[in-house]
Formats: sequence, structure tokens, C-alpha cells
Amino acid sequence: MPRPANPLVRESLLDAGMTLFHARGFNAVGIKEITDTAGVPKGSFYSYYSSKNVFAAAVLDRFWTGIVRHHGPILTDPSTPPVRRLVAFFEALTRDNAERGFALGCLLGNLALELSDDNGEARLRLANIMEQWSDLIAACLAQAGNTADDGVATTETTDLASMIIESWEGAVMRGRVDQSRAPYDRFLTVSLPRLLDAVGVSV
Amino acid sequence: MPRPANPLVRESLLDAGMTLFHARGFNAVGIKEITDTAGVPKGSFYSYYSSKNVFAAAVLDRFWTGIVRHHGPILTDPSTPPVRRLVAFFEALTRDNAERGFALGCLLGNLALELSDDNGEARLRLANIMEQWSDLIAACLAQAGNTADDGVATTETTDLASMIIESWEGAVMRGRVDQSRAPYDRFLTVSLPRLLDAVGVSV
Repeated sequence: MPRPANPLVRESLLDAGMTLFHARGFNAVGIKEITDTAGVPKGSFYSYYSSKNVFAAAVLDRFWTGIVRHHGPILTDPSTPPVRRLVAFFEALTRDNAERGFALGCLLGNLALELSDDNGEARLRLANIMEQWSDLIAACLAQAGNTADDGVATTETTDLASMIIESWEGAVMRGRVDQSRAPYDRFLTVSLPRLLDAVGVSV
Repeated sequence: MPRPANPLVRESLLDAGMTLFHARGFNAVGIKEITDTAGVPKGSFYSYYSSKNVFAAAVLDRFWTGIVRHHGPILTDPSTPPVRRLVAFFEALTRDNAERGFALGCLLGNLALELSDDNGEARLRLANIMEQWSDLIAACLAQAGNTADDGVATTETTDLASMIIESWEGAVMRGRVDQSRAPYDRFLTVSLPRLLDAVGVSV
């Protein structure tokens, strides 16, 4: 199909999809609701995206790009020690969730547990985003450790980065169930420091 | 409404709901599909459950009860040291997930991130189950620690139990995205032992 010329419509669809999927999930939201929220005719959806599944992959990209743009610089700020950057990064994500009353969870985690094999494209995108996220955290961890590898991420730092992200996502999940910041606080004060100990650094 | 007399129908509905919700989620599965799978007329659903939401709460209970019945005894086995029991418990859950190719995640976690405020009853039940789960792990942790509190769970052990569960749920999430056992293995070999260090015990 020819690529439509109006980037504003595409933007509106992605904004609507991100808000609606985050608030209510993938399956509970229909395409008509997305186009209504975006203020465009329902038929135009398929000029931009061949399926809801392909659209979800684009929404996930947009969500992740927003996190990298808003909070990514924290992780590379040379004026702050690497471990402090990691804590500050997750504190920033905690503030994002506080603004939503801890009620919505993380869009990545939500779709991770809702998308099934039928949603191949979105699921593969999600796997790729989780990998990018691990790499970002691992690069910071590599600079934090007293290692002889000159700050280059290794299998060990990438695994550790993944565990930090997994503990974080579990905390966000429990925070959503209880609509409480308690799981965020214990992640920041106990789980994260204990995992960071593995690279021989303390918060 | 009068309580129907056929417990077998109720069992069939719960079995069908558990299988279908676990495989495809809450919103993707309709009541007709549940009654078809259970082999009962669609209309009979509402003789047993006033809504899909109330039904989801009962399905969550059934899933949790199954875990407690199958794996709960591991946590109280007096012939095994408490910390080994905790590891064995999560190893048993890992085997459950391996049987499903790591593709379905945990029903509790999946619904935690799919149910919204509209699903009050199921969400509250889920919060209660997560609390029961924390208490179960905390009781084992209290026996593991070299504390003066005679093995009684404290705020500290309950918080630690919650963090262990949250790290577990995050690992299950990532395992589902990647359809891989790697997150389970790193939970068992790194995250869990590091958290257990907090009670002064090692695996």
C-alpha cells in the first residue's frame, strides 16, 4: 500500500494507541476507539498500519523512544557516578508511575503479558526493546564495576542488567495490583542495591 | 440468584476459564468460548457467576489453590533447610513453566497487568493472593534467618518475600517475551541468592 503523506495523522494514531493501550490493554481497545480518539476516520487506520498487531509494535517503539529521550541522558551523565545514574534512572521512572497513581503499570510489561503468539510482530519488537534496555543498563554497569574490561559490557553485566529490569517490572506489577508505591520503594532501597553488589559497587 | 446444585458444571467452567485466560488473557476470551470449552450451555454461566469479573476472581483462586496444593508442602518440609525449600519451590514453578514452553507466563501476573479498575473484584482478589503468597514465603524466610524472633515473620521478612516474588514475576515476564528459560535460571542462581543474603543466609 502507498505510504500516506500525513505524518500528523500517524502521530495522532500513535498517541491515541499509547494512551489507550496503557490504560486498558491491547485486547480491550478497538480500532474504532483509537481512530475516534485520534480524531481521524476509522478507514484511515489501514492506510497507515496493516493490522492492529503491526500498530502495537509501532506504539511500543514510541513508548520506548519516549523513555530513552526523557530519561536516557541520566544514564550517560558524566558528572554523576555510574551507580548513582542507575538509581536516578529508576527514580525517574518511579516518578512517571507516581503521576499515574501507580495504577497503569509499564506499557512494555503490560503488553508483554497480554500479547500472544498471534501477535508475532509486536512480541518480537518487545523482545528487541527489552534487549535494548538491557544493553543500556549494562553499559552503565560496565562503567560502574571495578573490572579490567575498560567499561565494556560483558555477558555478566548484561545478565545483571536484565535482572535489574526484571525486578523492576515485577515491582511495577505489584504496585499496579496494590496501587501502591511500596514495591517501588523496596526495589530502590533493597533489590537494586543487592543486585548492584554483584558488580562490587554499593549505592 | 439461587445457588445451582451441580458442582461439576462449576468445576468445568473454572477449568475452562483457567486454561483459556492463561493461554490468551481475560479480554481476548468471551463467555461463549468458556461455556463451549466447558461443554455447558452459554446461558448457564450466569447461574454460577454474576459476571465475567466475578468469574475471573474465582479462576484466580483456583489457580492459586492449585499452586498451594502442589507446591506448598515444599515450603514447610521439615526435612529440608528453609532456604533450600525456597529454592526448591521456585524450581518447581520453573518446571511448571517449562512444560508450557515458557510461553504463557504466570496467570496471576498476566491478569495483574490486564485487569483494570473496571475489574474491581478480580483485582482485589489478586491483591489478596499476592499477600498470601508473600506470607507463605515470609514464614519460610523467618525460619531461615538467624534472628531472635523465633521464626515469626516480621515486616522485614514480608518485604523480602514480596521482593522475591516480584523478581520472580519479572523473570517469568521476560521468559514469556523471549520464550526462554534464561530469565528463570538467572533468578534461581543470582537474584534469589542475593535477596536471601538479606536474611543472612546463603543458598
